[in-house]
Amino acid sequence: MRISAALLLFVSCQTVFAAGSGLDARAEKTAERLRDDAMRGSRAYEIVESLTTEVGPRMGGSEAYDRATAWAQAKFKALGYDKVWLQPVTFPVWQRHSESARVVSPFPQRLVLTALGGSESTRGDLRAEVVEFADLEALKAVPDGTLAGKIAFVNLKMLRAKDGSGYGPVSNVRRTGASEAARKGASALLIRSVGTDSDRLPHTGMMKYEDGVAKIPAAALSVPDADLLANMLRRGKPVTVEMNIQAGFTGSKTEYNVIGEITGRSKPSEVVVIGGHLDSWDLGTGAIDDGAGVAITMAAGALIGDLKQAPKRSIRVVAFANEEQGLLGGKAYAEAMKDAMPSHQLGAESDFGAGRIYALYAGVSAGSRPVIEHIGTLLAPLGIALQASGGSAGPDLGPSVPYGLPWAELQQDGTDYFDYHHTANDTLDKVNAKDLDQQVAAYAVLAYMAAETAVDIAPEPPKTQP
Amino acid sequence: MRISAALLLFVSCQTVFAAGSGLDARAEKTAERLRDDAMRGSRAYEIVESLTTEVGPRMGGSEAYDRATAWAQAKFKALGYDKVWLQPVTFPVWQRHSESARVVSPFPQRLVLTALGGSESTRGDLRAEVVEFADLEALKAVPDGTLAGKIAFVNLKMLRAKDGSGYGPVSNVRRTGASEAARKGASALLIRSVGTDSDRLPHTGMMKYEDGVAKIPAAALSVPDADLLANMLRRGKPVTVEMNIQAGFTGSKTEYNVIGEITGRSKPSEVVVIGGHLDSWDLGTGAIDDGAGVAITMAAGALIGDLKQAPKRSIRVVAFANEEQGLLGGKAYAEAMKDAMPSHQLGAESDFGAGRIYALYAGVSAGSRPVIEHIGTLLAPLGIALQASGGSAGPDLGPSVPYGLPWAELQQDGTDYFDYHHTANDTLDKVNAKDLDQQVAAYAVLAYMAAETAVDIAPEPPKTQP
Repeated sequence: MRISAALLLFVSCQTVFAAGSGLDARAEKTAERLRDDAMRGSRAYEIVESLTTEVGPRMGGSEAYDRATAWAQAKFKALGYDKVWLQPVTFPVWQRHSESARVVSPFPQRLVLTALGGSESTRGDLRAEVVEFADLEALKAVPDGTLAGKIAFVNLKMLRAKDGSGYGPVSNVRRTGASEAARKGASALLIRSVGTDSDRLPHTGMMKYEDGVAKIPAAALSVPDADLLANMLRRGKPVTVEMNIQAGFTGSKTEYNVIGEITGRSKPSEVVVIGGHLDSWDLGTGAIDDGAGVAITMAAGALIGDLKQAPKRSIRVVAFANEEQGLLGGKAYAEAMKDAMPSHQLGAESDFGAGRIYALYAGVSAGSRPVIEHIGTLLAPLGIALQASGGSAGPDLGPSVPYGLPWAELQQDGTDYFDYHHTANDTLDKVNAKDLDQQVAAYAVLAYMAAETAVDIAPEPPKTQP
Repeated sequence: MRISAALLLFVSCQTVFAAGSGLDARAEKTAERLRDDAMRGSRAYEIVESLTTEVGPRMGGSEAYDRATAWAQAKFKALGYDKVWLQPVTFPVWQRHSESARVVSPFPQRLVLTALGGSESTRGDLRAEVVEFADLEALKAVPDGTLAGKIAFVNLKMLRAKDGSGYGPVSNVRRTGASEAARKGASALLIRSVGTDSDRLPHTGMMKYEDGVAKIPAAALSVPDADLLANMLRRGKPVTVEMNIQAGFTGSKTEYNVIGEITGRSKPSEVVVIGGHLDSWDLGTGAIDDGAGVAITMAAGALIGDLKQAPKRSIRVVAFANEEQGLLGGKAYAEAMKDAMPSHQLGAESDFGAGRIYALYAGVSAGSRPVIEHIGTLLAPLGIALQASGGSAGPDLGPSVPYGLPWAELQQDGTDYFDYHHTANDTLDKVNAKDLDQQVAAYAVLAYMAAETAVDIAPEPPKTQP
């Protein structure tokens, strides 16, 4: 009875101190102002426009990433961040030099493909007959050696889904397919692009070789090219393809996570960390992956920085290095911060394009849950619904979770995300400024409330004991 | 009173001999059956699948066009055409060898472009500052010599329209822009792609140099790349681009219009001619431009050929050679047929993609108009509305009109046509089989009724006296 009366009062005016969230009416009012200001127009579009125009593609290991680093440092400073610093990440450098393919017979024509990240070269032209598989299981089912001197072609279609749930099965083909094919004797792997589009623009993305298995070149055909090749194969005659991939690893390089902070007013050493990844693939300009995430979180932090009074704790925005080639910036952050993880109040990452946010998840202790619930009430007008369970910390904050990072997820509508993901088509025109504003509003509310609450947010207990 | 009663009777049961159309109830019934059979499933999709898979890109002047010729001959025969023959077309051969571009400064990154058909090479790297113009008029307005050592960039946006009316102004930039830019001293022309999409796939298409003006290389940036370059220029600093186009004319070649006929039962030397063009650009597989047109008209003719009794006149389907580089197959047809033009009952051409037909136009004499009106009543259930005026014979039959070809136009919905037109994205997945069936139905009705009527269709009188 008392609870429902309090709830009623809370819902009706939203200015009462919400039981357990550690946030008073004044904090709530500030958060509402941040939200509404962002919705009237944030700087996020301007930031992603700047990054894609002035830097463009910035693959981990490239000279362009160094320009992106300088760009991010300058941008943090221009946006009024108090502290801007770099955190090193060292990794082997993979480079794409050239790639081409064609059907030699029976129906000569060009095929459009792109090497998967991490792929070896073909060392000259590789010409071989193509054998199609519906999925990885079909490939695994043939006896070892079956594909000697052949190209394995795994033609698994990705399903479109708002939550991106179609990605798992197909990205697994991309990541592990080369070694599976090599085990069967294949001299190369072709996959259908991991994408929901039907554009003649192939999707790259990282793959990995298993130790002890021959390293064969691996590439993705665009979706129309995968269909074309399948249509040729359907005719029952041998189809011979010639492909030439020049790519590979050479040396190592140190790059940097670029970090900007808005210093907290009373607990400056405690931080709410938000961010996205600064690196992109080389084909597009990295607008949705992940210029948008960097822009949204930079703009959200800057909005909080513009307040007359900073929140209690610091707001840290991380532009992660080299997410694409193995979450390298995120792992470096986790390693560097593992001893400081208890001073992390909350983490939230934006790396799923530029679509609107529709759900809020959290990985926090039961005792900290009222903070998230309070945040949820302020996000509801943005069309964001708090979920009882599920979600994840995201690729770059994921590595910090085992060290005790409490996290939230602001899930975006990814219906169209995989139309452009990892292709040349990941360009600024795919970003809608009003959609970014909604996301900035959500991140600003989340980060501000988490930084301001009297509650020290604790992580959720580990699901399995180590 | 008598007319409206007849009209009422006609509309109510559609089996009465329509006054003036020269078509009886039996002809009408046959046409209805052709229409309904086509709607239940025609062979058009199968044909365009075959052409794009087994031949693919088939640019005028390429070895692939010869394979397309063999394909078309074999396909006509397989579809039961009585007569299959070739009509020669000789022209200079233009070839694309390679093309690339990048911004050198102030923001180094790759640009995606494609050479316009007919363009000269850059002869090595061409590096110059870019000057942007909103349209051709703005370019024409600057004094001669202004652009010495510069690259002119005309960034005119194409508007989307069902009837393709956005094409005129932008394709004019493509066709004539290089000489306009050269007159101002420019060393190269870049244009925004003639397209309504926002994909990183540039649109090629023919251009022409004016006599007596320097021939400078000309290329189209993809729409996102045009936006990118414009965003760089907006910052007010000089933008230097390096481009390398290797392309040009070398020698001449004879190719062929491929013609299939279904021989008429009583007036075999009189013909209804329908068709599309067999050549395509080199970037895509030529599915919508104009594999669809070839497939629709081949399938429509074949459906008529399958009738127990052929119509009075012959049905001629022409797969035109080299439309893309100057309507060369259409001009050759007109020249070869000029003396035989009086034996042409009607012509209709499909060359606007794979979208559904929604309008019927005709260019015939007033006395022949009842035939078109009768055809219109049979097309109405397909969602096709007869128009009182307007339309055109199309690119490949256009050259035959001055020689007296009566024509009809079945206008397609071109809303999405310029998303893919002349790009690598012109692939089979852009074609919907059910939409093709509707078009086959329309062409079959049109061709059959025109071939069967007792009326000799006369051309519309020339609009201007020569």
